[in-house]
Amino acid sequence: MLLLKLRERLLSLGFFEFHRLFSQFALLTKSNCYNGSIPFWSFNNNMTKEFILTMKEQLLDLAKKRRSIYALGRNVDQTPDEIASLIKENIKWAPTPFNNQTTRAVILFGANHEKLWDIVAKRLKSEVPTEEAYQKTLNKINGFKAAFGTVMFYTDTDVVRRFENDFALYADNFADWSEQAQGNAQFAVWTSLAENGIGANLQHYNPLIDDEVREAFGIPAHWNLRAQLDFGSIEGPAGEKEFMDDADRFKVLK
Amino acid sequence: MLLLKLRERLLSLGFFEFHRLFSQFALLTKSNCYNGSIPFWSFNNNMTKEFILTMKEQLLDLAKKRRSIYALGRNVDQTPDEIASLIKENIKWAPTPFNNQTTRAVILFGANHEKLWDIVAKRLKSEVPTEEAYQKTLNKINGFKAAFGTVMFYTDTDVVRRFENDFALYADNFADWSEQAQGNAQFAVWTSLAENGIGANLQHYNPLIDDEVREAFGIPAHWNLRAQLDFGSIEGPAGEKEFMDDADRFKVLK
Repeated sequence: MLLLKLRERLLSLGFFEFHRLFSQFALLTKSNCYNGSIPFWSFNNNMTKEFILTMKEQLLDLAKKRRSIYALGRNVDQTPDEIASLIKENIKWAPTPFNNQTTRAVILFGANHEKLWDIVAKRLKSEVPTEEAYQKTLNKINGFKAAFGTVMFYTDTDVVRRFENDFALYADNFADWSEQAQGNAQFAVWTSLAENGIGANLQHYNPLIDDEVREAFGIPAHWNLRAQLDFGSIEGPAGEKEFMDDADRFKVLK
Repeated sequence: MLLLKLRERLLSLGFFEFHRLFSQFALLTKSNCYNGSIPFWSFNNNMTKEFILTMKEQLLDLAKKRRSIYALGRNVDQTPDEIASLIKENIKWAPTPFNNQTTRAVILFGANHEKLWDIVAKRLKSEVPTEEAYQKTLNKINGFKAAFGTVMFYTDTDVVRRFENDFALYADNFADWSEQAQGNAQFAVWTSLAENGIGANLQHYNPLIDDEVREAFGIPAHWNLRAQLDFGSIEGPAGEKEFMDDADRFKVLK
């Protein structure tokens, strides 16, 4: 019961609150040589009230950790299996309209991850006008290749079409909704990796690379590539995030 | 069991927090003050190792709390200002391609929230074939109206068009990317509300209601309504979530 209370308390605490708890705890242990009989979680009323009234910001804190990291490496503590498992779980729990589960993922590590970025490099050769411009592009792509792995996000267009047929009233929406579902899944995966100290950035070399990638990795023809999230150890900080004025994008009508 | 739960909770704390906690606990256990009656911090080496190697699942745990809740009420502890502030912060930190910040939000409470669902009810009257069908629809909409508030998610089409013009190479993508950005923001807001014990469900009565809503709430003509997230106290559980086979949607290539 006591541990349950502690558990609840820990659950409800954000970063700063946690440190406040800890300093309380530290005080108790210093002053009383805490012997287990003093319930250190029995906060005074003011603290309790403050805890209850403040919004919990665990998700927001994680969202703030999710940034575009371009300096990625392979100093990753976790195994490919552990990472892949987390990615899959996140995608499974991300919502889709009508629970139609349109999002697919191909998770690449090692030589397969490198192969993807080689395909991108080769494909861009014919797109970039000068050798000088290509060297710049190549440097960028080698940065992605230096990462630990890549999640290729796909949408199953067969499923989208089936719902367009089955729910004619909403037929115009399923393509857009599958993109929103992509966002749900991408955000969850990206943020979950960030939580684990794994940096990432999201690229969109589709549709340029679609055919080569489909052939290289045996991707079904009805899977449509939407984004590539390359990830790895964080070898350099994210840039400053800039925000437009709140007044230009939010209205609160009470 | 309690220790397992505590362990889960500790795992869900951030990396640095955990290590600070751990080093403090380690100090305590070394000192003579603590008599060991509740030795929950005396991890052995294997446990420590396991903590470090296991993926953190704070985000995934929150994602699992984010479900479609249809039985919503107004027994909400937090104030509209607190809720609106959390929603805005989440949208601000959700990523957009080129950081073009296309997502807008109108957050409705009280009479304005009710007005939205009255508009939906009125608008659907002409869409639903029979009085019996309309009563069913009306019951559903009254469920949304019974909630505490609604976030209307918009996309600023002026910004989308500006990026289509300024980055001609990617012109075909910005509309889709704005939808993915919608997903990022919707997922973050929905999950963050769930973290705070506030249930929600996501509706798409656009484009049917766009004109009436624009007029009722003074929405700029270039904001395009994408979704309506109504939220409130959780008055009934979510349904069972069904999952397709992993093998049909994931490939891991190591």
